[in-house]
Amino acid sequence: MTVTYNPKRTIYADFGPRRLHADNINPSVKAAKYAVRGELAVRAEEYRVRLANGEKDLPFDSVIFANIGNPQQLDQKPITFFRQVLSLLENPALLEKPDVLSSAFGYPQDVVDRTKLLLDDVQSVGAYSHSQGAPMIRDSVARFIEERDGFPADPQDLYLCAGASSGVSTLMNIICHHPSAGVLVPIPQYPLYTATLSLLNAQCVPYHLEEEKAWGTNVRAIRESLAKAKAEGTDVRAIVVINPGNPTGASLSPEDIKDVLDVAAEEKLVVIADEVYQTNIFVGEFTSFKKRLRQLQQEVPDKYDHVELASLHSVSKGMVGECGHRGGYFELVGFDPLVAAQIYKSVSIMLCPPVIGQCLVELMVNPPLKGDASYALYSQEYNGIRDGLHKRALALYEAFKQMEGVECQEPQGAMYLFPSITLPAKAMEAAAAEGRTADEFYCLRLLDATGVCVVPGSGFGQKENTLHFRTTFLAPGTDWVDRIVKFHAEFMAEYK
Amino acid sequence: MTVTYNPKRTIYADFGPRRLHADNINPSVKAAKYAVRGELAVRAEEYRVRLANGEKDLPFDSVIFANIGNPQQLDQKPITFFRQVLSLLENPALLEKPDVLSSAFGYPQDVVDRTKLLLDDVQSVGAYSHSQGAPMIRDSVARFIEERDGFPADPQDLYLCAGASSGVSTLMNIICHHPSAGVLVPIPQYPLYTATLSLLNAQCVPYHLEEEKAWGTNVRAIRESLAKAKAEGTDVRAIVVINPGNPTGASLSPEDIKDVLDVAAEEKLVVIADEVYQTNIFVGEFTSFKKRLRQLQQEVPDKYDHVELASLHSVSKGMVGECGHRGGYFELVGFDPLVAAQIYKSVSIMLCPPVIGQCLVELMVNPPLKGDASYALYSQEYNGIRDGLHKRALALYEAFKQMEGVECQEPQGAMYLFPSITLPAKAMEAAAAEGRTADEFYCLRLLDATGVCVVPGSGFGQKENTLHFRTTFLAPGTDWVDRIVKFHAEFMAEYK
Repeated sequence: MTVTYNPKRTIYADFGPRRLHADNINPSVKAAKYAVRGELAVRAEEYRVRLANGEKDLPFDSVIFANIGNPQQLDQKPITFFRQVLSLLENPALLEKPDVLSSAFGYPQDVVDRTKLLLDDVQSVGAYSHSQGAPMIRDSVARFIEERDGFPADPQDLYLCAGASSGVSTLMNIICHHPSAGVLVPIPQYPLYTATLSLLNAQCVPYHLEEEKAWGTNVRAIRESLAKAKAEGTDVRAIVVINPGNPTGASLSPEDIKDVLDVAAEEKLVVIADEVYQTNIFVGEFTSFKKRLRQLQQEVPDKYDHVELASLHSVSKGMVGECGHRGGYFELVGFDPLVAAQIYKSVSIMLCPPVIGQCLVELMVNPPLKGDASYALYSQEYNGIRDGLHKRALALYEAFKQMEGVECQEPQGAMYLFPSITLPAKAMEAAAAEGRTADEFYCLRLLDATGVCVVPGSGFGQKENTLHFRTTFLAPGTDWVDRIVKFHAEFMAEYK
Repeated sequence: MTVTYNPKRTIYADFGPRRLHADNINPSVKAAKYAVRGELAVRAEEYRVRLANGEKDLPFDSVIFANIGNPQQLDQKPITFFRQVLSLLENPALLEKPDVLSSAFGYPQDVVDRTKLLLDDVQSVGAYSHSQGAPMIRDSVARFIEERDGFPADPQDLYLCAGASSGVSTLMNIICHHPSAGVLVPIPQYPLYTATLSLLNAQCVPYHLEEEKAWGTNVRAIRESLAKAKAEGTDVRAIVVINPGNPTGASLSPEDIKDVLDVAAEEKLVVIADEVYQTNIFVGEFTSFKKRLRQLQQEVPDKYDHVELASLHSVSKGMVGECGHRGGYFELVGFDPLVAAQIYKSVSIMLCPPVIGQCLVELMVNPPLKGDASYALYSQEYNGIRDGLHKRALALYEAFKQMEGVECQEPQGAMYLFPSITLPAKAMEAAAAEGRTADEFYCLRLLDATGVCVVPGSGFGQKENTLHFRTTFLAPGTDWVDRIVKFHAEFMAEYK
């Protein structure tokens, strides 16, 4: 990681001996890796600034941030209904204006009504809320879960959080009690999980997804990995499932979910279901872990009664794409109330999640319905984003199919493709000579040549002797896909 | 801490053996204490809900949340300029409306201009920003610091964060490398510090403030505490100073700050300056640690060159009072660039602070100036809040002066008073019989009788054989002060 410093600071450059050095700070922080915002992302940002400053010596005229699921950075427009409510929440004085509903300002009645309901609950978006989240917002989330799953949900079991990342951190902090604590994590995975486990000085117990079966979850791989970790003395306490998958896009069938819940029930593992891509599904339909668990609890006496499940959702993904607002929630199912009380205390130390982000969670789970003034526009925008994502995923997939040495699973969901790449021996040698992994070498060359920023598979984990990269399919247009195709052909020719 | 659960969950109540119990989760989480949102706050919220539901059997008709510095929960109005910009940032479509500047909607020109500048930088408040915060916002903060201190500030050294609490957590995570790591913390203190150290399984090294000298910082107490901790094998790495103080309200003179910097320079301690109350000053004026450090670096060769300082600020306090937006920043001074790079990596795992909160930081540090369309209203609102706080602080102080067994330092700043209370022996016995500290017993009785929620001194730390409570002076009106006076007289009579 390169961080450049402004020469101004050299006024006081000669600081002499300091207390903190890179080798005496918290070693758990040092050990944490987070490739999504690592060297490649920093270099891409440098290129962006150079282009913005009018520099002409780069071989591309724009940087494409395909390294991160950040839709509104890539021209995805926010959904109007959400933003209209948020703007009135910030400036409630508008509610008093006689013209607020006029066409001059275009605030529909349901926007005004919803704003008033939310303000009744939070009083001001500038006030701290309840540490678990504002009561009415948790009520709305509970209703959403009930309607989605057909099983009851209790607002007391819901914890709003500053994006799902913050929720994962809270949960891992409770679960990891000792350096021997271990958590099963799918490989490839979103690196938040390994980074959080590093910060907590706990063990990542990897289980490999099956690339040849569209990145499916193989319960045998889970059991083998678990047995091995236990034999090595790891106290495996939880299993992470990302459904639909990041970086793989794979979504789990009800049978797959049952397999995971079987292991959880038999081995007493807390299930952490990262379900932030639950609406990003192109093939089949989403089944939540909560729904499947409740079904099994009804169908099979006793076996699943003690399963502890935490399910996460977010405003950053789906068609909402409001990453910058840092909104999300998790639901606890089957947790000991005394453990839940400790979770409450731990989140209370940070006071509360951002209130405007909480309000956005409410809007996400309770969007306009048929008959509401905002319904037509909401549906049009929502479906437009969904169809656009699918179209771009397919275009990228078609391009990958035609590239030499590249194999890619058909897009199923989430916001990513994760193709494997087979590189010539000479390219592998050139990477080794630079002290880099071959996928990192490839991705850096891609960025330098085209301005397209993707993340090497090593940032997510991959089977030995395989190479991949992750790209989002959020960037508009097809020009950037053409850039990748052209670069790839030249790269393969160069190292043939 | 009592957490009540909805009977709905008893549908699945018989969970059998779970993985997580209160006695096998992370013991560091269990050990953390955070009184500001503890039992008293939970009970106060229950009373609030009962009153809202129309219950008539409580001996008061409103709950006064004087336990937490949450101004907009207590009817403080947000500053119009801030909220107008935020509402346009949420709904930029309004910028296209021909009437946006008309009196019908009341958006002044400088609000429109500022919104456009911020949008140029962040693109959308729904997009993730740079993990340190959006570049232009950090530029603004740097200019603010330069103007405040008369010394240069570098945007590269600034890290925006989700309120100062989150910044403290980031810094402590880097500093605390081992269970032997220790941090000097003033007593009484804001319990965020002890809670964060508990979570990191590190040592709190307490140093007592001098109540008899208006809660001043006594450098001899610091040195004694430090020597004792070192003798016990603690690796003391940092010192926290809260200036102006929470819960004490005390503000440090330039001489006091030099004393602290002397210890830091001599003993190689990282200085964590919690300066979130820097505009809440009634007596004297605020001097930042950064300014004093730069002065000393100019005046005295070498001695202070290696001092590492992190200074925090927030949108939650001051006259801004926008707690729910979770905005803040910290500035690193004199840190090793490799350590700074690790701090960058650690914040990048959570992607970025809330972008709308970042924009509010920009507005706080760069408010309307004379000649700007919003200046008159901004000044009027800002000064009104400031004067109101001072007036209420004095009214509360006058009341405390007249209460038997209560002693209080004259209000100097922040949002709190921290009077000491001397209770009759019989009250001490009654508290002991309930297994409570006497100050907790007193505060619970106060809440039950009056609906006024304050925090016992034990939540912040206090010298042995002394008792205190912390109250904010944010609540409007004087009725609640009268309630305290009346309760106190009755309590003293009851236990005489």
